[in-house]
Amino acid sequence: MREITVDVLDDMARGAGILGTGGGGDPYIGKLLAREAIRRHGPVPLLSIDEVPDDATVVPVSGMGAPTVLLEKLPAGTEELAALRALEAVIGRRATHIVPIEVGGVNSMIPIAAAAQAGLPLVDGDAMGRAFPEAQMVLPTLIGVRNTPMALADDKGNTLVVDAVSNHWAERIARAACTQMGCQVSCADTVMRGSQLRDGLVPATLTLAFSLGRAVRQARAAHTSPVLAALEVLGGVELFSGKVVDAERRTTGGFARGSARLSGDGELELSFQNEHLLARRDGAIVATTPDLICVLDTDSGEPVTTEGMRYGLRVTVLGVPCDPRWRSPGGLELAGPRYFGYDCDYHPLAGHRV
Amino acid sequence: MREITVDVLDDMARGAGILGTGGGGDPYIGKLLAREAIRRHGPVPLLSIDEVPDDATVVPVSGMGAPTVLLEKLPAGTEELAALRALEAVIGRRATHIVPIEVGGVNSMIPIAAAAQAGLPLVDGDAMGRAFPEAQMVLPTLIGVRNTPMALADDKGNTLVVDAVSNHWAERIARAACTQMGCQVSCADTVMRGSQLRDGLVPATLTLAFSLGRAVRQARAAHTSPVLAALEVLGGVELFSGKVVDAERRTTGGFARGSARLSGDGELELSFQNEHLLARRDGAIVATTPDLICVLDTDSGEPVTTEGMRYGLRVTVLGVPCDPRWRSPGGLELAGPRYFGYDCDYHPLAGHRV
Repeated sequence: MREITVDVLDDMARGAGILGTGGGGDPYIGKLLAREAIRRHGPVPLLSIDEVPDDATVVPVSGMGAPTVLLEKLPAGTEELAALRALEAVIGRRATHIVPIEVGGVNSMIPIAAAAQAGLPLVDGDAMGRAFPEAQMVLPTLIGVRNTPMALADDKGNTLVVDAVSNHWAERIARAACTQMGCQVSCADTVMRGSQLRDGLVPATLTLAFSLGRAVRQARAAHTSPVLAALEVLGGVELFSGKVVDAERRTTGGFARGSARLSGDGELELSFQNEHLLARRDGAIVATTPDLICVLDTDSGEPVTTEGMRYGLRVTVLGVPCDPRWRSPGGLELAGPRYFGYDCDYHPLAGHRV
Repeated sequence: MREITVDVLDDMARGAGILGTGGGGDPYIGKLLAREAIRRHGPVPLLSIDEVPDDATVVPVSGMGAPTVLLEKLPAGTEELAALRALEAVIGRRATHIVPIEVGGVNSMIPIAAAAQAGLPLVDGDAMGRAFPEAQMVLPTLIGVRNTPMALADDKGNTLVVDAVSNHWAERIARAACTQMGCQVSCADTVMRGSQLRDGLVPATLTLAFSLGRAVRQARAAHTSPVLAALEVLGGVELFSGKVVDAERRTTGGFARGSARLSGDGELELSFQNEHLLARRDGAIVATTPDLICVLDTDSGEPVTTEGMRYGLRVTVLGVPCDPRWRSPGGLELAGPRYFGYDCDYHPLAGHRV
């Protein structure tokens, strides 16, 4: 894919929603933002990591907040560019490329909107290879790239620039401000040079999201299983299939936290903080963060976000191995189950990511 | 007074504590910071408003947070300069003068420390003529001066720059971040030109604080009433004298909130949010914000902060008329009793401020 047009958004958003492991916000709202921006400013050139010059200034643009809030409070559409401009003012140079910080529903689409508005190309990849709830949970943290200066902008016109002593501190301070700014802001942070992209990004995740979303749609049209089609693209395993019998969530500290229980051949319990982080089958752990726990509507193959989990929904849960860098000691310290307060070690899923 | 030396700090801190109406933090800790900075960098030149050139860049430097936290977590001593430098980087010019944002315990002393560290003169005055709990409650707000960009710095080395659509929004966002940064940060904000000081400041409040503190000390040495000596300097009225029989406080939302009951000739109830804001005598309102409600130890004349109110303490409560600009409709909207959620109108104290 050489450019992102309105025609690919549906499939890409669907696939990104699946890779978003329940988080990253509702893809639908992100899609509306991206579509509007492309219609107004034209298609967005998509470059592979190899095509980005070493001295490029690559800026991830994303949304921060609780996805539950996004459902009720639509963005103004001006936040992405406001955050980008605030960051550029502080670093003293203009962005040359935009990139997603994560591949997840709304956060795969917001960078498209930002790139269209700023008239910049987008890099095909992201800094997580999935979605994670906190700003420091990116591969650049593992290679010593700071996520500050971090610029935040809200729908009212307020902006904020954080300069922190660590990527964790930036997350903590920005999250508190974000909560006060309405729990939904745009961020520009974790600036990278082109030469850092190979170590700082998981490559080609936007085209992966597109292929995944297209495979699901095509399977549905062909009356074959969209879940199997997704598995074929992703290379993971089916963990469980069943019906949601309980879902409990609360929006606290700027996050949507909670758990859901599925009933089928036994019981599966999913624990989440914006994203699905832990899956227990009949009490035994079957998958943990940083591996991907993806929940799909069994019939349609559509991604089910954590805030979309509701009683009676029939879903299939897939486990997909994470990027191998997340399995390093540093990666697990940053985004393993213990960081999130779960009293268990990482249980690596078998197999490799496609 | 032409300069601030370590010799004047005791009296000035005492007087500022009284003018701080129970807030502004413990003067003792502020005094230590100022003394250390003066010892290291030399005395701080003190200029009257008239002596500041029209094109000067005057920067208020202050502490934000809950005074209750300050008692347990001492500042690192690097925050003031870090906040100032972060602000200067954003506005693109260096400060030429420092000024207190409020005349209150720690917040009269922090600007002295900041001025000493930065090697800049201090302006004799402040933006409130008392202490108030929120950042937008300054005379500059009444004349349209924005309090952003607002720079915050904590003891760990984190900094933050807020650019908000209103002075209220800046307070709201900064307060949330401040709470996360440990509830005690330094701020540099509300930059003024020299030409704006006449409308933006209450003049000569540092020398007033000094005179007040000295009068209290001298009365004590002469075995006359320090409370009467304070009244003579301040020009207010004695509202009540009695014993603290109840004090209730909680640190929530970045503030120390609560109330205290005094017993004497009847009963006086004081309500506070960092500062004393409302005094009811036997149920009838006798003084409200923005007038100053100053609580003094009856025997020593020392200021009693809201966090220092404790059972058995014998105190005298003075009411002192505020700067007349606070009595305007705009001033009352910004800092009158209804803003703080009290269901009553402003009850102006008789008399004029000396």
